[in-house]
Amino acid sequence: MAKTAGIVLIGNEILSGKVTDANAAYLCRELRQLGVDVRRITVIPDEVDLIAASVGEFSRSFDLVFTSGGVGPTHDDVTIEGVARAFGTRAVRHPDLVRLLDGFYNGVLTEARLRMAEVPDGAELYWAGSLRFPAVVMGNVHVLPGVPEIFRQKFEALKERFRESPFHLCCVFVSIGESILADHLNAVLLGHPELMLGSYPEFSNTEYKVKVTLESKDKVYLDRAVEDLLGRLPDGSLVRIER
Amino acid sequence: MAKTAGIVLIGNEILSGKVTDANAAYLCRELRQLGVDVRRITVIPDEVDLIAASVGEFSRSFDLVFTSGGVGPTHDDVTIEGVARAFGTRAVRHPDLVRLLDGFYNGVLTEARLRMAEVPDGAELYWAGSLRFPAVVMGNVHVLPGVPEIFRQKFEALKERFRESPFHLCCVFVSIGESILADHLNAVLLGHPELMLGSYPEFSNTEYKVKVTLESKDKVYLDRAVEDLLGRLPDGSLVRIER
Repeated sequence: MAKTAGIVLIGNEILSGKVTDANAAYLCRELRQLGVDVRRITVIPDEVDLIAASVGEFSRSFDLVFTSGGVGPTHDDVTIEGVARAFGTRAVRHPDLVRLLDGFYNGVLTEARLRMAEVPDGAELYWAGSLRFPAVVMGNVHVLPGVPEIFRQKFEALKERFRESPFHLCCVFVSIGESILADHLNAVLLGHPELMLGSYPEFSNTEYKVKVTLESKDKVYLDRAVEDLLGRLPDGSLVRIER
Repeated sequence: MAKTAGIVLIGNEILSGKVTDANAAYLCRELRQLGVDVRRITVIPDEVDLIAASVGEFSRSFDLVFTSGGVGPTHDDVTIEGVARAFGTRAVRHPDLVRLLDGFYNGVLTEARLRMAEVPDGAELYWAGSLRFPAVVMGNVHVLPGVPEIFRQKFEALKERFRESPFHLCCVFVSIGESILADHLNAVLLGHPELMLGSYPEFSNTEYKVKVTLESKDKVYLDRAVEDLLGRLPDGSLVRIER
């Protein structure tokens, strides 16, 4: 079984359409390449109770959880408090972060700035790679900032911790429509119940009508399923294969 | 109170990073313009039980629910079945859709094609605008296809049904950082507790450091809050205002 992950995006700006999130799509691609199975994404407002409920549920349901957004010094940055409540604890100032901020702000530490030194009580700091500011990890929950360049920097620094055995993927492009293809796909699944099989129609594509994706962590199993599908396709309906 | 909405994206291809969803961002922008408050987005795999659980929870929690994806003739198209279960019912063939498909496929109706005639028992069909294929609506749940151009076509045809009183928005761009701005924002919120107030820092922008968004359905309330904020900003820190 692949390790599972859940992603919690926190931010009114996404829900109100002011900002198009880029972090979830990036993280899905990265985690897939690492062999991790993303099972769910949720996007919620900057509200402590909702963050606590979502993070708690995700932490119990998945091996790894990543949050994006809601860390910073202003009133709408309530992710740390929400994650703390999800674990039945509270936010506390971490002495290492206070020292770091003290250096960054030349000793001028206001209450607002000190909010950025807060972590859920019991959280760990990961000083991986070239990070100037560490990543905050509470249990299996990795707290990442919403700003895409910093989100990626932090994930890049951490990502080798999450590497698993890879997924193997094969894409088969066909010139027949989904309603004809459906029976062949069902037959393939009957013989290969563990196969991850996707079917994606294109309506304004002149090269092919459907892209079929076959995936497995077991290369031999995948190859057999691909052979099975190719053997079933009507003559002339295969456009190309991509491995 | 604004009408609330929840969005359920259904598709392994999004979670596995093969496809970047465009429907949620589009729908968030559109619904905001219509005056509707999107409260949550969830992205889940093509699994009947998960769809039923998510759609059921969203249908009870929000005024309007929109699903994207998982409608079609193949094994991974299980949204109709999931929505049906969310309402404690089952999928049935709708005679109007059978007739429509019969015309579309010149009378050659396979089992796979007939799956596209299925709706949750009790669902309504909305033949709005120039739609060739109607939208399926079960209770407050609007079932939309995942393919972006068709998703938009269907939403466009339906959208006037959802129009509410509008949100009024004012963006204030400032040259001071969030950690200085935070106290002013807190003061504005203290005097205007119903204000929707966002603070979005930019780290590689030479024009401004933070974009502050102030929003309300009450124009007079918004204007007062904006005046309050402007009066509090340190001299020379205002870059520009966008209404």
